[in-house]
Parts: sequence; structure tokens; C-alpha cells
Amino acid sequence: MEAITQLSYALDTFYFLVSGALVMWMAAGFAMLEAGLVRAKNTAEILTKNVALFAIACIMYMLMGYNIMYPGDGNGYFPALDLGFMFGGDNSVEDVLASNGETYYSGMSDFFFQVVFVATAMSIVSGAVAERMKLWAFLLFAVVMTGVIYPLQGYWKWGGGFLDAAGFSDFAGSGVVHLCGAAAALAGVILLGARKGKYTADGRVNAIPGANLPLATLGTFILWLGWFGFNGGSELKISDIGEANAVAAVFVNTNAAAAGGVVAALLTARALFGKADLTMALNGALAGLVAITAEPLTPVPLEATLIGAVGGLLVVFSIITMDKIKIDDPVGAISVHGVVGMWGLIAVPLTNSDASIGPQLLGLGVIFAWTFVASLVVWLILKIVMGIRVSEEEEYEGVDLGECGLEAYPEFTGNRGSGL
Amino acid sequence: MEAITQLSYALDTFYFLVSGALVMWMAAGFAMLEAGLVRAKNTAEILTKNVALFAIACIMYMLMGYNIMYPGDGNGYFPALDLGFMFGGDNSVEDVLASNGETYYSGMSDFFFQVVFVATAMSIVSGAVAERMKLWAFLLFAVVMTGVIYPLQGYWKWGGGFLDAAGFSDFAGSGVVHLCGAAAALAGVILLGARKGKYTADGRVNAIPGANLPLATLGTFILWLGWFGFNGGSELKISDIGEANAVAAVFVNTNAAAAGGVVAALLTARALFGKADLTMALNGALAGLVAITAEPLTPVPLEATLIGAVGGLLVVFSIITMDKIKIDDPVGAISVHGVVGMWGLIAVPLTNSDASIGPQLLGLGVIFAWTFVASLVVWLILKIVMGIRVSEEEEYEGVDLGECGLEAYPEFTGNRGSGL
Amino acid sequence: MEAITQLSYALDTFYFLVSGALVMWMAAGFAMLEAGLVRAKNTAEILTKNVALFAIACIMYMLMGYNIMYPGDGNGYFPALDLGFMFGGDNSVEDVLASNGETYYSGMSDFFFQVVFVATAMSIVSGAVAERMKLWAFLLFAVVMTGVIYPLQGYWKWGGGFLDAAGFSDFAGSGVVHLCGAAAALAGVILLGARKGKYTADGRVNAIPGANLPLATLGTFILWLGWFGFNGGSELKISDIGEANAVAAVFVNTNAAAAGGVVAALLTARALFGKADLTMALNGALAGLVAITAEPLTPVPLEATLIGAVGGLLVVFSIITMDKIKIDDPVGAISVHGVVGMWGLIAVPLTNSDASIGPQLLGLGVIFAWTFVASLVVWLILKIVMGIRVSEEEEYEGVDLGECGLEAYPEFTGNRGSGL
Repeated sequence: MEAITQLSYALDTFYFLVSGALVMWMAAGFAMLEAGLVRAKNTAEILTKNVALFAIACIMYMLMGYNIMYPGDGNGYFPALDLGFMFGGDNSVEDVLASNGETYYSGMSDFFFQVVFVATAMSIVSGAVAERMKLWAFLLFAVVMTGVIYPLQGYWKWGGGFLDAAGFSDFAGSGVVHLCGAAAALAGVILLGARKGKYTADGRVNAIPGANLPLATLGTFILWLGWFGFNGGSELKISDIGEANAVAAVFVNTNAAAAGGVVAALLTARALFGKADLTMALNGALAGLVAITAEPLTPVPLEATLIGAVGGLLVVFSIITMDKIKIDDPVGAISVHGVVGMWGLIAVPLTNSDASIGPQLLGLGVIFAWTFVASLVVWLILKIVMGIRVSEEEEYEGVDLGECGLEAYPEFTGNRGSGL
Repeated sequence: MEAITQLSYALDTFYFLVSGALVMWMAAGFAMLEAGLVRAKNTAEILTKNVALFAIACIMYMLMGYNIMYPGDGNGYFPALDLGFMFGGDNSVEDVLASNGETYYSGMSDFFFQVVFVATAMSIVSGAVAERMKLWAFLLFAVVMTGVIYPLQGYWKWGGGFLDAAGFSDFAGSGVVHLCGAAAALAGVILLGARKGKYTADGRVNAIPGANLPLATLGTFILWLGWFGFNGGSELKISDIGEANAVAAVFVNTNAAAAGGVVAALLTARALFGKADLTMALNGALAGLVAITAEPLTPVPLEATLIGAVGGLLVVFSIITMDKIKIDDPVGAISVHGVVGMWGLIAVPLTNSDASIGPQLLGLGVIFAWTFVASLVVWLILKIVMGIRVSEEEEYEGVDLGECGLEAYPEFTGNRGSGL
Repeated sequence: MEAITQLSYALDTFYFLVSGALVMWMAAGFAMLEAGLVRAKNTAEILTKNVALFAIACIMYMLMGYNIMYPGDGNGYFPALDLGFMFGGDNSVEDVLASNGETYYSGMSDFFFQVVFVATAMSIVSGAVAERMKLWAFLLFAVVMTGVIYPLQGYWKWGGGFLDAAGFSDFAGSGVVHLCGAAAALAGVILLGARKGKYTADGRVNAIPGANLPLATLGTFILWLGWFGFNGGSELKISDIGEANAVAAVFVNTNAAAAGGVVAALLTARALFGKADLTMALNGALAGLVAITAEPLTPVPLEATLIGAVGGLLVVFSIITMDKIKIDDPVGAISVHGVVGMWGLIAVPLTNSDASIGPQLLGLGVIFAWTFVASLVVWLILKIVMGIRVSEEEEYEGVDLGECGLEAYPEFTGNRGSGL
């Protein structure tokens, strides 16, 4: 029996590490998606932000975030502070064997899986504020977001805090990760204002096309793949028949929702614009994925497809609406992760009889309110202290030269690029 | 013993899910490969096709295809129809334990692994018809291909139908997946005709270079990686010493064949053209992979390298020949997956003493004939009802603007791109 | 108990295969990184080199390298020669069961894991000699490097040779893989000379910017992901609690070091140049990864972050210094893998009490000296026999047209590209 426990611990740990590696890979997905959807002159900067925010998330979550989010005791509003993780340590063999199956995977593998989630939340922000935010202000925000803002609301649900006690259900984070990221982004976008030329005085909305759609498509496929780790790993255990079936169902439903999202967004775009809009198809895939993330286990595959399809439909209308109310989000992140994240939370009770709409709305409201208000305060402080928006001239020239001192595509843009 | 069965089921399911995720990743590979090998003005459209066909494949296979391909009873010409999968369900713990090892992985994981194969077959088609086919006609074809055409021939072999009973051997699908996709593509290409300007009246063949070779190279590496799931997962089981050795041998041979294909194609191209032609090296890698797919288990590594090398040699001559007979396949898909797929099927008896050439030729013929004829009928109906080819003007301007209403690289092509 | 042994063997083999697949993926990472950091006119050639060198590594390591590196007996200076691997064979069930846990994974999976390491070492070379080396000379060097030069020094450490006996410690290859690759590159670069126009007669250093920084960023993320296989797989076993914890610690530390490298390089670049230099951030990530590779197990996460940060700091100064001494390395490979590889080896005793500085310096010196001298001889022979540098005209026009007969981006560079 001890040999079984050992092997089972090893399998669950390996499953967790593989899942975590897939989620880490989503960082590349966000980087490519965002780099593909901005203009050439702002590409190197958004790449720098994505690489740097991932690094910052890993460091801040090691220093503080993980300890805040998983303090060992839950059920309250505020966790006890400690700084233990950075000094390492893991379950001893004796403790595992004595735990009767309660400790069934490595603590280090748990950290690895969790840390890549923080980075995901932060990646959502970078797309929405693209093409006009100061790089260093953004990175300072990342420090606070990944060190405190995200971990605290994460504690409320996954750390065993009051939202968990209230019956709020969020399997892999339509709320805790995606809505949280989108709320932080919204606060930033409101303070930052729209890109120059996006909305004209006479009420027109100018489309500002992304410079490299193959990159954006690659990013979407990377995210799709990574999501198998994101949702599949969130079952937390795979080592018996029931758990293995559960993980497999999560994989199938995650994939089905993405497929539903693509088809719904593509048909909606065709109905509205008469064309097969690639960027809407990509957003549809991501919307399907975000929608199913709050509950990828209980739906049958047909339901999962439909939940994703509603996400794909929603995201098209949401992107159009954002432009009507002049919230300038170059990559549609607030629609994909925020609006559809809410849909995901609300959809949980449709297939999961243990969930009900009250706690879902509570969780939705608390995550949004906390993240939005806390982020707004931080953005405001940054705005006052150092400014968060680049100069008009730098925005015109492109933030690549201003912030990074180099160009992403020095040979490609010829005489069309820089002044676009 | 029950604990062993549980753990072993979990490991086999996990192995299946990881393999499936790798095959899903091949969708990104095909998208990048094809996007890199077409001209800039047709790039967004082929990306849209690749994202959409994957989504359609997932939905149609859930609704119909999987039920057709694996109906629970085999050995006949036509499977019984049922629509069960979309409503979910998986093996119960009791059934697994009572099955004496016969049921050893999750049914959901099986679906996940199979569904990404369908998408692979369909991805082959999109490359061959690139740069001139109507997007919506293509997507309607995808509905029939992934819902019926592919699953029926899949049933004949892997569902236990008459080809399986006849002793036809196809480990991971040189025939069932690759030749099938290529046969559907060939039917489409014949009805569609060549791109304007590809073949001139006086018999010259114009090379139409792809716009982005790093993308094509990335796509090839993605496919190479994904193939470890494609072939490696097709062993279906890993949970004992013999099976683990088998999966490892499949990994080594798959890799060796790709390597052999690269070197053979590169040397052949140098002999013929005097240059190290990158696109031939990429096609050589893929040819090696297709060649070994029918039997990646029985060869020793040296044999696998040689089987792949023959594939790499074949693909260069096949691509040249296709142009001679004016079959215009912008990415070489029919050569890579069709011609080399046949070589893969024929090569099985060279190393696998359980296979013989008669059943191999029967399977080859049946798969090709069924897929080609059925596809031809569907393409013909589409041609009559809605047309399958874009207008000359749209082809000249690029299908991106006509079909998708956007450009893939709006800042890069300057005054060279649109009219090329 | 036999059932446990079978399952445990399967899990360890699967873990090895997944790790190997991740390392194989690093080949795509190097290809993208290098393709992004060279000029457009030299992109197809470096892609061709990367695909071809991977294939050559797989073939040569199968034919000779693996047999040299792991000859079955160690502790000496020269291994016995045999050519066995290419004919296959793996552990029999009986032998595994009789081995009392000593044989715990498939021999084929071991080869698969090892072969992708060779390719990694060789990939390091291709970046450093980019934009002016003859393609076929490079590929001939790859034959010798992957068949003999790398395997012999690999034998000295991992095959149980004299460096291993001397107490030299190198967990996953800061020395055996990264320093080895960098030493071979340095020898080539010295014989080859700098690119035309890089260093002017009056002592200025011209920056030659890479053509496609999103590709370079993608390559870095791919390498970061692949490194979880590189380091994580090098624990060689995962199937009990202690080993699972060890693998998890390696994952966490590998990630932490990369994060530390990014932040340190970014801050250093800001201090030196006043900008957030994206290419330095990417090199910082890679430096962090190289630094932790010699010992990713014993540090606590905070220490791993710091070891990586020192790597990130070092790499910025090293890149600047290389230009001062006119060693022209277009992608910074010698700094990232060589200089930081040395730091990684030296840092081992800081956290691993079983290591000491003497054997570390011995290993460092032996690996560098052997690889540098052996490579220099091979490069020299190639230089005399066929020449290693392209003509001035070809260098000016771009090696893509000269060596590969095609362009990587035929539509993008307009009238800016070819003569840059």
C-alpha cells in the first residue's frame, strides 16, 4: 500500500507539473496574441511587457503572493502573512504516508501550477493598455497586482476564504483569474484614455488593424493548448479512475467550448459584417475557453459547446459595445476575459447542481469590485507620481523607440509603418 | 490489485490526454505552415480556415463522426448510427474493475485523442486549395468531411470494419489520416484548377514563393513535436514495461524518420537545384513523419531513418511531378501526405512480419477511392450550388480582403504586396 | 510488487519521453530566436541550418554519438567503440524485474532524451556564426560535433568518465551542453571573423538589428518551456515521493532563475542604456536558465532567483565586452551559453554541499579546452578544404539567395531589405 501511495503521489505531481508547464506556455500565447494585434511600431514594447510581467509575477508570487493566497488557514477575510515559500521545503515522505491520501502531490508542484496562473491574470492587463502606456508604470503595477491584488481575492476563493465558504463556485478561474485580470485592465484603460485617433470628435470609430495576424493566430492556438493545463490541471488529482475520467471530461469540454466559441463568433461576424473576420474567430475561441473555465467538469460535451458558443456570441457584441462607450481595448481583453468571464460564472449553476446563482453573483461582484477599486487606486498613484501615459510624440512615433530603444521589425515597415 | 488497476487506468488516461494535446497542437502547425507558404494577401484567409476547420471538426465529430467511426460493433461495411457521444458518459469504476484490464483508459480521453486526428486530416486539405477557394464552400466541405467521409473509412480500419478484418495494417494513419486528407484535397484541387499565373500557356511553371518562411519552419517544428503524440499515443497503452518500451520505440523511430527525411530531401534538392532549399527540407521532415506513421513500432532506428529518407526523396520528385501535370498544390500537401502516405503503407511489411502487401494495397486503394470519390461528389455539389472558386478579381486582390475583410500584414507589404 | 515495478517503469519512461519532447521543442526555440535576431536577407539560411542540424544530430548520435557517450563502462578517458544503438533493442521485462529497481526506464526513452541534448549543443553554434558562414561547411561541422566532439566530453561526465570520477557536478549541462556548444561556436567565430560593417576601422561598433523580434521572443518562450524538460527530465526518475518532490523543485527553480535573469538584465540595460531593451530581457531569461542548469535541485527558490539574476547581469556585460574585443556573435550565444554556463558551474558549490570548486573548475577547463581545440581543428580543416565564409558579394546580397536560392520574406522587405 505504501508503494501505491508513493507512485500515486508521483503521478499526481507529474500531472500537476505538466499542467503547469502548459499554463506557463500561455505566457507565450498572450505575448504573440498581443504582439499580433498592435501596430508594428508598438510591438517590441508589448513583447517586453509580456516577458517582464511573467518574470515579475514569478518573483512577487514567490516573495509574497503565494503565502497570501494559501496561508494554511482559510475561511476569513484576511490571511495571516508569512514569507515562507521563498525558502523552499516540501512534504516529507513520512508526512505524506501518514496523511491518508490527504497530501497527494508535491507542494513545489502546487506553487508552480499557481504561479503561472498569476502571470495569466497579469497578461490580460497588458493587452488592454497597449500602445500608449508607459512601460515602467505598467511593470510597477504588475508588482502590486501579482504580489497583493490577485492573491488576496484568490485567497477568498481558492485559499479557503469567505467566498469559498459562501458557496461560490469557480473551477479554474473564470472569475479569480480572467475577470480579475479584466477588472484591473478596465481600471487602467479608464484612467489612461483611448489611443490618439481611435475615436474622432465627430463620433467615428477608427479601426486600427493589428500588424501581424499570423502571430495573433499562433497566440490563440498556444492559449487553446495551454488551457488544457489551465482547466485540466485544476481538477488537482488524476490518480484513480474517477479522477482520471474527470480530467478527461475537462479536456473534452474545454476543447468543445473553444470550438463552439469559434463557430458562434464567426457566424455572428458574418451576419454583422458580411465577412469571415479572423480576429473575431480568434476572440471567439478565447471566449469559449473563458466561458467554460468556471465549470468545465459537469457539462456534457454538447452543453460545453453551447456554453462556449454563447461566449463567442457575447464577445462580438461586447467588443462592438466597448467601442461605442469609448473604452479603447486594442486586443479585446476586457470583453474576452471580463464580460465572458462573468458569463462563465453565471453559467455554472446551469450544469452544476451544487452551485446556485446567489453565491455566483456574490463572487462575481466581490472579485470585480475589489480588483477594480484596488487597481484604480494603484493606477492613480502611479499616474500622480510618474505618469502612466507616454507623450503624444512618443505615441505617434511608436512606444518601441521611446520605451525600448529598438524596433520590432526594422526592415519590414518601410515608409508605411512609423507614421500609421 | 484494485489499487494497481486504478493507478494504471489513470496513467494510461493521462498518457492519452497528453498525446491528444500534442496532436491538437498540430492544428497550430498546419496553420503556421500554410500561412507561411502562401502569399501575404491570402494569409488571413488561410488562418481563418485553419481555426474554423478545427472547430468544425470538433463539433461534427462530437455530433456524428465519433459515433460512426467507433460504433461498438465492427467487422462490417457500414456502422450502426447513434448520437450518443454528445451527451457524455464514461466508464464506471465498477465496469473498469470488472473488465480484467480490457477497459484501461477513459472513454472521454479516447474521444479527445480521436477528434484531433480528424482535424489533422482536414488541415491537409486547406493547404492544397489555398489562395483561390471560397472560404464558406471550404467550411461546408469540412462539415461533411469530418462528419462522414473521414469517419466512415476510419471505421473500416480502426473501428474494426472490413479493412481491419482483411489484415490491413496502419498504426497511426499514413492511410486513414494522411492519404485520406490528401485524396480529399486532390479532388478539390482538380475541380478548382490552378492559381492564375501558376502555369503559363507556353508551358512554363511559375514559382509563387511563400511570404513568411520562418512561419513555415515553425509550423514544421510544431508538427514534428505534435507527431510524438500522433504516433506515440497510437500505441494506446503505456502502463507496463512492454508497452512503455513500445511507446519509447515509437518516439525514437518517429524522430529518426523525420531526420532521415530532412537529410534526404536536402541532398536531393541540392543535387537537382544546387541549393539548400529550405521548403524542401521542411517537406522532407514532414514526409519522413508521414512515411513512418503506418508502422513506427517494428523498425529499428536505422530502418526508421531509411524509411523516412525514402519519404524525403519521394516528396521532392513528387512536388516536381505535380507541377508537370499541372496539379497546383501551393504547400505540397498532396505530395507530402498522399504520395508519401502511400509509401508509408507499402513499407509496413518491410519491418512488420504480421503485415503483407496485399492487404496494404487493398487498404490504400479503398481509402483513396472512397475519399476521392465521395469528396469529388461533395465538391461538385458545392460548385454547382454556390461555386467553389473566388472571382478573378478577388484572386488578384487577395482572398483576405474578399473573404475576411482584413489584411494579415497591413503594414509590411507596402507597394509590393497586393498585386504580386 | 511486480505490478508496482511495471507501473513505476512505465511512469518513469513516460516522464522521460515527455521531457525529451520538451527538449526537442527547444530546436524550434533556437530556430525562432536566431531567425528573429538576424537580418531578413539571412533568415532562410539560418532556418535551414537549424532544421538540418537537428536532423544531422539525430542521425550521427544514433550512428556513433550515443555509443561513445554511454558505452556501458565508464571511469576512463576513452570509451570503447560500438555501433549497437542503431539496431535497436530495449530492456526485457525479465531483466527489469530482476534488476531490483536499477533499470527503471526504457533504454529507447533514454536515447530520445539524450539525442535532443546533442541537438541543443549544436543549435548554440548556429546562432554565433550566423550571416556569413557557408551552409555546407556548417553542416559538415555538425556531423563531427554531434558524432564525436560532444559525445566524448559527455562521456567524461555523464557516461561515467574521469570528470565524473573527479567529482565534477553538472546536473543538466551548464557545462556539458551549454559551455560545450559555446566553445565550439567561439572557435568558429574566431576563424570566421566578424560580419562586414560590424566593426569599423575607426573603432566603432555598429548595431545590426534583428529583423523580427516577435520571433526572437517566441523562441525565448519556447526555450523557457523546453527547459522544464531539459532540467526537469535530468532528475531521471520521478516515481516516488522523494523523486517527485525533486522534479518539482527543479521546475520551480528553473522558472525562478529565468525570472531572475529577466529582471536583472532589464534593470542593467536600463541603467546602462536608459531603455527597456527587449533583446537584453530575452538574453536575461536564457542566461538565468543556463545559470541554473548546473544545479537546479539544491537551491531554495530565492537562491535560484538570485543565481539566475547574476546570470542576467553577467550576460549584459559579456555581450558588451564581446563587441569590445571584436568577437562578432549576432545572437549573443557565446555570452549566454559560454560565459553564463561557466557561472552556472561555479555556482554549484554555493548550494550543493557535495560539490566543491576544484572539480568544478577542472570540468569547466576540460570541457572548454577539449571542445575549443577539437572544434578549431575541424573548422580549420573545413576552411582549408572548402572555405567556411561566403563571398563578400554573397554576404552583401544575403546568404538566403546564395545558399538556399530563396528569400524568407519575399514581399516584406521592399526596397529597404536586401542592401541593409
